Amino acid sequence: MKAAAEQFSDPWGIFPAGREIRPLDRGALAAARARVDSQAKPRGSLGRLEEIGCRLAAMAYPCETSPARVFTVAGDHGVCAEKVSGYPQDVTRQMVANFLAGGAGINSLADAAGMALTIVDAGCCGGPFGAPVVDRRLGDGTANIAQGPAMSLDTCLQGLRNGIGLALDAVAAGDRCLAIGEMGIANTTPATALYAHLLSMSAGELAGPGTGVSSEVVAHKADVVRKALLVNARHLAGGGDGPDPVRALACLGGFEIVTMAGIVLGGACAGVPVLVDGFISSSAYAAAVLLCPAAAEYCFVSHASAEPGHVLAMEQLGRRLAHPEWNAPLLHLGMRLGEGTGCAVAWPLLRAAAEAFRRVATFEEASVSGKVL
Amino acid sequence: MKAAAEQFSDPWGIFPAGREIRPLDRGALAAARARVDSQAKPRGSLGRLEEIGCRLAAMAYPCETSPARVFTVAGDHGVCAEKVSGYPQDVTRQMVANFLAGGAGINSLADAAGMALTIVDAGCCGGPFGAPVVDRRLGDGTANIAQGPAMSLDTCLQGLRNGIGLALDAVAAGDRCLAIGEMGIANTTPATALYAHLLSMSAGELAGPGTGVSSEVVAHKADVVRKALLVNARHLAGGGDGPDPVRALACLGGFEIVTMAGIVLGGACAGVPVLVDGFISSSAYAAAVLLCPAAAEYCFVSHASAEPGHVLAMEQLGRRLAHPEWNAPLLHLGMRLGEGTGCAVAWPLLRAAAEAFRRVATFEEASVSGKVL
Repeated sequence: MKAAAEQFSDPWGIFPAGREIRPLDRGALAAARARVDSQAKPRGSLGRLEEIGCRLAAMAYPCETSPARVFTVAGDHGVCAEKVSGYPQDVTRQMVANFLAGGAGINSLADAAGMALTIVDAGCCGGPFGAPVVDRRLGDGTANIAQGPAMSLDTCLQGLRNGIGLALDAVAAGDRCLAIGEMGIANTTPATALYAHLLSMSAGELAGPGTGVSSEVVAHKADVVRKALLVNARHLAGGGDGPDPVRALACLGGFEIVTMAGIVLGGACAGVPVLVDGFISSSAYAAAVLLCPAAAEYCFVSHASAEPGHVLAMEQLGRRLAHPEWNAPLLHLGMRLGEGTGCAVAWPLLRAAAEAFRRVATFEEASVSGKVL
Repeated sequence: MKAAAEQFSDPWGIFPAGREIRPLDRGALAAARARVDSQAKPRGSLGRLEEIGCRLAAMAYPCETSPARVFTVAGDHGVCAEKVSGYPQDVTRQMVANFLAGGAGINSLADAAGMALTIVDAGCCGGPFGAPVVDRRLGDGTANIAQGPAMSLDTCLQGLRNGIGLALDAVAAGDRCLAIGEMGIANTTPATALYAHLLSMSAGELAGPGTGVSSEVVAHKADVVRKALLVNARHLAGGGDGPDPVRALACLGGFEIVTMAGIVLGGACAGVPVLVDGFISSSAYAAAVLLCPAAAEYCFVSHASAEPGHVLAMEQLGRRLAHPEWNAPLLHLGMRLGEGTGCAVAWPLLRAAAEAFRRVATFEEASVSGKVL
């Protein structure tokens, strides 16, 4: 039986009492499909917008996609010491300052889409930023995953709770669509390690140029990932049969990654659509939906990153989900910036799908003749 | 030498005196590329948004994409008598009424994007509609292309002038982005014939299910296209070495197709971005840019239609253009509705690209450290 049909359970105690993630209502989905099929257009002719519209129609606030908010979550990584990134660690902090100044890609693209932007510090090196950065610091950068766990299990659970809380609060305050993006120098390395462990993939096929490093650095990055999997093997074990997503996040993840995983879970718990950005954000999404498979039904992978491992990982993840086709990336624009930029570019597709679902007349309403051939 | 570098000429006299289509300024393009490469993000990390931003920066109103207008152009087709469509011819007229009532896909999607919508009657059967439909009627449906030319050469030239005028007037009135879409029962057949003739492709590889006809009807459609090419062979000949786009439009096109080709040319002449919809709209675009290759530099193929011939035709067309990569469809969502719906879904990408180009700070402006590895 596919995971989405399983009962919700919260063995780690990360959800507020009485809250759970429910799969989309199958009756609502079927009714939505029937409506789309009666609209005055050739059946299926809006392609993926129809699938998106039907899913949005079956969520807690049917077909609402506004207001929408991007959470850009920043954190630093001990594994940066292994020289896996093209940029110095300082850039994480400098880019948070750039977010505040409005000069980054996500500022322009969130504005263009009409999405609100919240910057979260999940644990950048150098101490707190102060307002308006939202302080959910789990430490001053993670430990080096090539030497041991990135963080303790307790810290990881706190990060998941932080993310769930951010999402639930946002929806309680009126947001109807959430998106996750990140900033964290060196974070393709923990993301690669997470995919390798959670999806039984090889470091070699997953490791890519990230911000644009040479093939020598890519090969080195794959070695660092292999080392991280090896040194953490004892801590990763435990729980049930397959890889444990929470232990994986603690050992191999990052502060921004675990917080984003929490936001995915919180958004799904609140019943709103959640947009997922590229290679790193999707590793948080993968961990979240392997922990709570029903969460995947609320999520949209905004784009296929130019980072080659992203599409491979999403295909592999799709095979574990009740609806692999829902997991397919929406856009293919060769983007690989992170920050949530892919979500900001993809969000208008959700709005468009919702509008088409709600407003396109049926053949009967429009007095249009049906198909004859 | 590639066509884009050629001198502009107007042997058919379709442009207003003194107006011409100029290739994008190469100096402006190079300056735009230099700016993008200095922005505080990994080089190339916004993928196609960077290419789009650079092109928009080199147009007549740099990086302006609003206000934007969709022209949904309707017309009927004599070839409908050959039973090539799944829907009766009446549906063209019924759908124009649906556009006016706000119940069609393009109404919802243009609204969702914030684009204005103009409905143009280029020649629907049954006489004029009255306001607010814009009357640019070239006849009461075309003649049957399986028996002879769709229209006279004079009518075709009038259609091109009509489209150019609509576009120039729209830009003069303030529009900064134009889009073409269509409605016309049976019009995948003339579009297929146009591609086959203009791009030296076979009817068999191009013919597809359109609104959803059976494989028998698809095979019949290919036969009808072959017949159209044969009976029009004498009229199609003339002019220079290769196929003549104007004669092709007259013999094999449709009233809405030739008018859309004019809108493409007029938009490029006015120096604004032009979004092209799917299989049928792209046949108008193909004819327009084969007539005036510099026009292609202003155009964006909004999406890859689910109609299988579309991607093949766009790849083949790209090989004839100075920048094949600019001709690649922006979205891959399995849409095949027409009406301009793909343009409405793709337009936010242009707006996003323009915003990112204009606003993302450089490394220096943002005080962000550059690459070290």
